[in-house]
Amino acid sequence: MSRDEIPTPALLVDLDLLEANIAAMAAHCRKTGCFLRPHAKTHKCLEIARRQIAAGARGISTATVSEAEAMVATGIRGVLLTSPIVDAGKIRRMVELARNGGEVMLAVGHHLEVTLLAEAAEAAGVQIDVLLDLDVADRRFGIQPGEPAFELAREIGRHRSLNIRGVQAYYGLGSHIQGFEARKKASLETMMPAVETLNELRRMGFDAQFLSAGSSGTYNIDCELPVEVELQCGSYVFMDVDYKSIGGQGDDGAYDDFKRSLTVLTTVVSATHCDVVSVDAGIKSFSTETAFRPEAKDWPGLKYEFFGDEFGRLRPVDGGELPPIGKRLEFYTPHCDPTVNLYDRIYAMRGDVVEDVWEIVARKESRPLR
Amino acid sequence: MSRDEIPTPALLVDLDLLEANIAAMAAHCRKTGCFLRPHAKTHKCLEIARRQIAAGARGISTATVSEAEAMVATGIRGVLLTSPIVDAGKIRRMVELARNGGEVMLAVGHHLEVTLLAEAAEAAGVQIDVLLDLDVADRRFGIQPGEPAFELAREIGRHRSLNIRGVQAYYGLGSHIQGFEARKKASLETMMPAVETLNELRRMGFDAQFLSAGSSGTYNIDCELPVEVELQCGSYVFMDVDYKSIGGQGDDGAYDDFKRSLTVLTTVVSATHCDVVSVDAGIKSFSTETAFRPEAKDWPGLKYEFFGDEFGRLRPVDGGELPPIGKRLEFYTPHCDPTVNLYDRIYAMRGDVVEDVWEIVARKESRPLR
Repeated sequence: MSRDEIPTPALLVDLDLLEANIAAMAAHCRKTGCFLRPHAKTHKCLEIARRQIAAGARGISTATVSEAEAMVATGIRGVLLTSPIVDAGKIRRMVELARNGGEVMLAVGHHLEVTLLAEAAEAAGVQIDVLLDLDVADRRFGIQPGEPAFELAREIGRHRSLNIRGVQAYYGLGSHIQGFEARKKASLETMMPAVETLNELRRMGFDAQFLSAGSSGTYNIDCELPVEVELQCGSYVFMDVDYKSIGGQGDDGAYDDFKRSLTVLTTVVSATHCDVVSVDAGIKSFSTETAFRPEAKDWPGLKYEFFGDEFGRLRPVDGGELPPIGKRLEFYTPHCDPTVNLYDRIYAMRGDVVEDVWEIVARKESRPLR
Repeated sequence: MSRDEIPTPALLVDLDLLEANIAAMAAHCRKTGCFLRPHAKTHKCLEIARRQIAAGARGISTATVSEAEAMVATGIRGVLLTSPIVDAGKIRRMVELARNGGEVMLAVGHHLEVTLLAEAAEAAGVQIDVLLDLDVADRRFGIQPGEPAFELAREIGRHRSLNIRGVQAYYGLGSHIQGFEARKKASLETMMPAVETLNELRRMGFDAQFLSAGSSGTYNIDCELPVEVELQCGSYVFMDVDYKSIGGQGDDGAYDDFKRSLTVLTTVVSATHCDVVSVDAGIKSFSTETAFRPEAKDWPGLKYEFFGDEFGRLRPVDGGELPPIGKRLEFYTPHCDPTVNLYDRIYAMRGDVVEDVWEIVARKESRPLR
């Protein structure tokens, strides 16, 4: 099957670029001595997770129980759930994975999570590894570093079924700070309380080995922290218009560490006006929550505007020419994670040839329908 | 299964309200003498389409070939594809539905569509009904009313395999004009060229019977047009924060013709700060493309902010109180169609009890994976 035969709109990944991105992150980890448990919330795709593991990642991070279930089912070990869960049913599903031989780990940041998890683990007769989830800046979830964290650690310590393996500190608000130096300064400052909390936990006698941290915006910053660091970045495999814009260590201040491997293939379905044409991909085909818009690949001088559920409008800018009706155009996505979440499959391209079609399997709720 | 057992985030529909909305639209059509071919792009769900047909709709409108395939597969007749398709593969899929006995209709607005469709229909030996798709205002797709439309009609007329059944004129930009009177004035003015084009087609000898038009914002406006009108509105089954805001004929100018039957069920997963809590539904759980935000049901005084792929932040406003950790809260959706598109299933609720679980079957691309 060739690119021209793919029904549009469709999600495409350029395999050469994807593989280069996975290799680049693996090389970074080898060079800096940090570890990698990349986030599957970005791709929700077993084939990509397996490539990340094959390149040296020591596990996979997940944001939902369904993602964790899908990853464990394919035999991936070291599956970390980074999100808080306070629901007994979901906790039981995670414990069930461990009881069936899956190697899972949960980030916990509230005594309710600890209580529910300990109860479920004891009932199932399994040991569960946990990371103490620290709220270093986002105020989104997790426990405050320092004394609140130590108190929660002591509570965890009283449960024989739970083992603290380290801490998690995700600084989401810092991941897109403009300019590498500004981002570096903010992230290193913000992460220090997590470093200190990890060290103190070790002095308290916990087997707390590492700090799980880092986004694709801070992967080359958080690795400098003076503890064992494990990166949980996800977007680097695909990149997007948003991350492309945050600045990096490139010659011109550009963030070009990873290549934009992900696109949405569209078709021009209407071209009857001289100043606008319509493509068949709109708000059901691209993420819309940022100020960024899809960017045409290999066709400069086009401005994309959302124009309904199924359509986008293209206008010429900077002397650009409008494409004709029937023309197929690829667009880089504004934000990769929520765009991938809109699709059931991803066409894995080698040049213009479809080498494989991958199911975005963990997009779905994994429980049976009834 | 009760509401408390549903894993969150989850999409819920209140069956009493859904049924009332379907009945209200059916009553409107009976009263005004217009017809209904409601849009399945809103719900993508066979169970809801069947209820609309049972209430008197004379078919179902669809926005994608996959939606059309799903609707035809369940035995629904009179399936209209409202979007332009200029891809030979997709055209063949539509013709294949007809060849297998499905009753389908396509809106066409460009000679390329006409050519491809006629070729495919002749090759398959079937007759295909079409609507002439008119570009009355949106400049999104379709042919200009008047002479360009007549020229395209004559071209269609030269193909024995194609039969013009009417015209389509969708005025998307008018569907959310604030205030009923302003919306009415704009819509009736904008639609008049479509009415005139339909009448002229009849004088030209085409069997052009009706005008397909209308959104959930103009269903009670376009029905007044002096031709046979068929409404293709979709959102009325669910409603949302956006449509709720546009104003209607209610006593206080409110749009309360239909009830908001659709919600997303969430759980408060973090509540460690006095001024904010986090719920487990973010940009992967709600549409984000409008300025509207999810609105809590039965819990006044909360402001929702998106806070990442899987999370939202709640702040108290107007003296509201924050919910505690573990609390389950339902939210009305900013925009129903793209929110439904994020889910695989919808929990059909009768009060607090799950009466059924419906697959959002036409969300998926219906072609096999390989």
